[in-house]
Amino acid sequence: MENALNTVWVVLTAALVLFMEGGFSLLEAGLVRTKNAVNVTMKIFVDLTFGALAFYLVGSHLLFGRDTLHLVGFGRILGPSHLSPEAFVLFQIGFAIAVASIISGAVAERFRFTAYIVTVCLTCAVIYPVSAHWIWGQHGWLADLGMEDFAGSAAIHAMGGFMALALALVVGPRKNRFNRDGSVNVFAPSNIPLASCGAFILWFGWFGFNAGSTLSAVNVHLASIALNTFLAAAAGGMSAILFSIYRFKVADPSMTINGSLSGLVAVTAGCAYIGPYAAIVLGLAAGVLVILATGWVDAIKIDDPVGAVAVHGFGGVLGTIGVGLFDRSRGLVTTGQLHLFAVQVLGILVISAWGFSCAFALGLAIKRTIGIRVGSAEEEAGLDIVAHGIPAYNELERFSDGSQLSFVDDFPTVEAKQESSAKY
Amino acid sequence: MENALNTVWVVLTAALVLFMEGGFSLLEAGLVRTKNAVNVTMKIFVDLTFGALAFYLVGSHLLFGRDTLHLVGFGRILGPSHLSPEAFVLFQIGFAIAVASIISGAVAERFRFTAYIVTVCLTCAVIYPVSAHWIWGQHGWLADLGMEDFAGSAAIHAMGGFMALALALVVGPRKNRFNRDGSVNVFAPSNIPLASCGAFILWFGWFGFNAGSTLSAVNVHLASIALNTFLAAAAGGMSAILFSIYRFKVADPSMTINGSLSGLVAVTAGCAYIGPYAAIVLGLAAGVLVILATGWVDAIKIDDPVGAVAVHGFGGVLGTIGVGLFDRSRGLVTTGQLHLFAVQVLGILVISAWGFSCAFALGLAIKRTIGIRVGSAEEEAGLDIVAHGIPAYNELERFSDGSQLSFVDDFPTVEAKQESSAKY
Amino acid sequence: MENALNTVWVVLTAALVLFMEGGFSLLEAGLVRTKNAVNVTMKIFVDLTFGALAFYLVGSHLLFGRDTLHLVGFGRILGPSHLSPEAFVLFQIGFAIAVASIISGAVAERFRFTAYIVTVCLTCAVIYPVSAHWIWGQHGWLADLGMEDFAGSAAIHAMGGFMALALALVVGPRKNRFNRDGSVNVFAPSNIPLASCGAFILWFGWFGFNAGSTLSAVNVHLASIALNTFLAAAAGGMSAILFSIYRFKVADPSMTINGSLSGLVAVTAGCAYIGPYAAIVLGLAAGVLVILATGWVDAIKIDDPVGAVAVHGFGGVLGTIGVGLFDRSRGLVTTGQLHLFAVQVLGILVISAWGFSCAFALGLAIKRTIGIRVGSAEEEAGLDIVAHGIPAYNELERFSDGSQLSFVDDFPTVEAKQESSAKY
Repeated sequence: MENALNTVWVVLTAALVLFMEGGFSLLEAGLVRTKNAVNVTMKIFVDLTFGALAFYLVGSHLLFGRDTLHLVGFGRILGPSHLSPEAFVLFQIGFAIAVASIISGAVAERFRFTAYIVTVCLTCAVIYPVSAHWIWGQHGWLADLGMEDFAGSAAIHAMGGFMALALALVVGPRKNRFNRDGSVNVFAPSNIPLASCGAFILWFGWFGFNAGSTLSAVNVHLASIALNTFLAAAAGGMSAILFSIYRFKVADPSMTINGSLSGLVAVTAGCAYIGPYAAIVLGLAAGVLVILATGWVDAIKIDDPVGAVAVHGFGGVLGTIGVGLFDRSRGLVTTGQLHLFAVQVLGILVISAWGFSCAFALGLAIKRTIGIRVGSAEEEAGLDIVAHGIPAYNELERFSDGSQLSFVDDFPTVEAKQESSAKY
Repeated sequence: MENALNTVWVVLTAALVLFMEGGFSLLEAGLVRTKNAVNVTMKIFVDLTFGALAFYLVGSHLLFGRDTLHLVGFGRILGPSHLSPEAFVLFQIGFAIAVASIISGAVAERFRFTAYIVTVCLTCAVIYPVSAHWIWGQHGWLADLGMEDFAGSAAIHAMGGFMALALALVVGPRKNRFNRDGSVNVFAPSNIPLASCGAFILWFGWFGFNAGSTLSAVNVHLASIALNTFLAAAAGGMSAILFSIYRFKVADPSMTINGSLSGLVAVTAGCAYIGPYAAIVLGLAAGVLVILATGWVDAIKIDDPVGAVAVHGFGGVLGTIGVGLFDRSRGLVTTGQLHLFAVQVLGILVISAWGFSCAFALGLAIKRTIGIRVGSAEEEAGLDIVAHGIPAYNELERFSDGSQLSFVDDFPTVEAKQESSAKY
Repeated sequence: MENALNTVWVVLTAALVLFMEGGFSLLEAGLVRTKNAVNVTMKIFVDLTFGALAFYLVGSHLLFGRDTLHLVGFGRILGPSHLSPEAFVLFQIGFAIAVASIISGAVAERFRFTAYIVTVCLTCAVIYPVSAHWIWGQHGWLADLGMEDFAGSAAIHAMGGFMALALALVVGPRKNRFNRDGSVNVFAPSNIPLASCGAFILWFGWFGFNAGSTLSAVNVHLASIALNTFLAAAAGGMSAILFSIYRFKVADPSMTINGSLSGLVAVTAGCAYIGPYAAIVLGLAAGVLVILATGWVDAIKIDDPVGAVAVHGFGGVLGTIGVGLFDRSRGLVTTGQLHLFAVQVLGILVISAWGFSCAFALGLAIKRTIGIRVGSAEEEAGLDIVAHGIPAYNELERFSDGSQLSFVDDFPTVEAKQESSAKY
């Protein structure tokens, strides 16, 4: 009976985590320019297909197989004994592909689609599982040191955020984003209601992401994990609204969304270890941090169309260190102990460095082989047409630029676009 | 084991209830005019942030603390013993902020954003918890009289609906809504597919809203609560489609959506106490009532952009009285007993009057202090620009009115709009 | 306790299945032309209202009542003993109306709204329950032969797909879809992000659709059902992306979405009986098949705006036969046994023929009585205006064609459209 309850719990929370992919997709589609809305959606489908299978077939063994040298796993997946192995791996798939989805937003609007498929496969098959093994694997070296990362502020979010930073650096900023005089052009989000739909799905799914990480329905912390998760999101949204009004004179919707998401990221490491007031404090800090960090990323001329580095990278750092501060029994602020805090700092530095350097190397390798960025004309036309042959919104039976689709031997071929799509 | 099952059940249903906020947001964004779609979204974020924290920190104690004089609670929350307290309060947060979200639609497109934050805080911290205590609190006086309101047709929906009515009255109708000759201009919904997405999310989440109110997985009524919930929604939608065709010659989508939602509201009080055929009858009545009520609200010159008063106010009255008619063991229609019916009528009058008068007083207080309504020019420009600095849909790297965004020292500042946003 | 767990499990998965209706709605609204987006949404509301009640009041008894002649059931519903009957029927309602929703997409943009209501009522009350009884009813003749269809690749998806084929044939193609020289015009999807939102909801809900079909939380296959479901979707999406690139030079978003959905359909019959690698193989095949089948449907001049026949019809055939190939203990490929394979082939032929011929007869009957198709002028104007009096997207206080709404005695009447709506 207990196994059945655990299995039901984990299957339902796995569904919630996988639904978050839809959240990522709609959020990104709403934040980027219209001409790339299909492309960001397709990249999430790559995560859900290529990425998921890469993790299922390869990465899950590196993460959860029998440990070697505290560095990586091999062979049969060693999961919790009280839980169906299928439920366990299904739940873990959702986490692996979230790393890829975090990356996708930061490189949107100019990353080649084929390069993205390669990136996702390597991320989910190797790069993510190795570092996650250090934290979550049997005898992973960071776990042995006592690092706490309940649902992945470091393993997932900071990892994704710093991989995103590296790849955004390698692929370069979008055309016309940074002016020579140092000023920055903002490309307004094309569809804020769509982005907000994505945000609500992410917030909803996060209950599965954090509380499901108990991998057990009888874990006594389950409910407080869920409550902490919500409180941090609420606090992050609140401080983002207030800080946005203070700084920009208006309550900016993108900042508000990212404030809530940043709160969720920040509580992800410690939701099982901290109290509700600490969760609120972490959330408040995250909401302010994400706005500051968005500016910092712009200031170093990294173009991140959705703020992935600010939300997941910086939020992940805050969350990981936050455990070291607020853990009920070992936190620096709560008990004065230093050890956990030190381990958390070490852990986040290691994870961020691993993510950044793997992604940087991967990016350079892609750049020098298959090419990492679309051409200038393609970027102007938009990746929807270039990589997918169709714009996001079509009013009539014609493309919005007037060309008529015709179907001769096959379908749906866009004859006028044959050349540019061949370059994709 | 039983505690674990109850906790898992309540955490999952709490997530569903909180996901309904996304439903409210998308429904409203689709029903209002484009120039206010960001604003209605931001108001839901206010519910999820300010409102949630106001209830968590203050309101939950007034609702569920130790009873004083059968009027209000104080101190530590007294929840069910078979359930984690964190799960209990997380679930209750979703209900409290739903009251605020009901209000938000009725005052859309002209209510000041700062005034809305104040309204939400007071609603979730004080106004709602007090009356809910009467119905759901230990020794609340309406509970002592035997009032039945399983998941809140009165405590949440009628409460929100009549607060909405009062605030819509105080803030006044949108410009050009009511003509001097008595005729009414309809502002067409800007995005019906978006609104329908919100409706589907609300319908989905309502399974958590009603069935989760068992607060227990072993409650023998759990499944029939869920079935009744669905049947009432189906019946409400069906009668709304038929009545719409009869009356308007077309099956109007807004009326259909509101018919289903009204059915859900109407079954919310009695879903645990009535049989499936009664649920269908209630739903059929609700679907017709919401169309009639929408006209009545217009006839008294109250401008309710989304029909919140018709759906939640009138639907909540129908639902509360419906329990008095159809309760299996004490209903007037089912058993001939009068007592429960009388208590339900008393209860709904009390709750509606409390909601209306508190909101009316609050509205006047806001009007005379910080101001309740945006200026005429701001209303024309739309609250998206005025309060949030950005339109909902942006095609290019420019605002849809042609002005270029530029980023000098900070971001994203809309220079051309500095003046109007300062007035917000 | 076990009953409580089963009930909670089935209620939650029933909510997921019913949420899939929102997925159908948004997917269709995004794939059809803008002028019919409201209409496809309203047809899903018909499924959720008329269809659901038709099944609840009538169809559920034909499906699950006491068996007569192995052909149909009568009387009280015989459900599993370990589960609340209300939970059982709520779950089953979601399946019945899914058949209707599958049909809705294939006949979109020219089917009369009243004809659709009739179609849904008869489908959910009679046509679907009878054939489903053969597979899932106590002593249904296909069940007695040993046919395996765990969650409905045949009973739901092939059924719906071949009913869709027949009705699309009877109602005829949309104007200007097929040219006289044999070439085909493609009507581009109006809103791909909206369609993708629908796809993500369908994928999410499918966890409930398949895993919930255990109707029991203690079923040892529950987790592997969920994992198989996901793996097939991932594989289907992946092969669709690759095959799309190979064939069309671009990764088409509609094909990608339909590839994932086809994978889900294909694993629906056997998710409880096959291993994960078989699920992946089935998914890979489904993703390729759906692209080929979309072309075949066009080649026989059947106009299917959303690919329902390709996804559900062909996917359902693949899935049903796939069980005969890959069942762990009786599959042709896995064990060399022929009996199950033969039964599956027989079963899918029977179901497809039943669905096609019932729908064809129904379509002709509707055509000759109330009329099945809107007039040519109405089809040009779009069903949103004709049947529902309002376009999907409205920018201002006016209809997008400039006419002003005015409200005299009632609301919302579109005076300029009175005539065309009377023809609807």
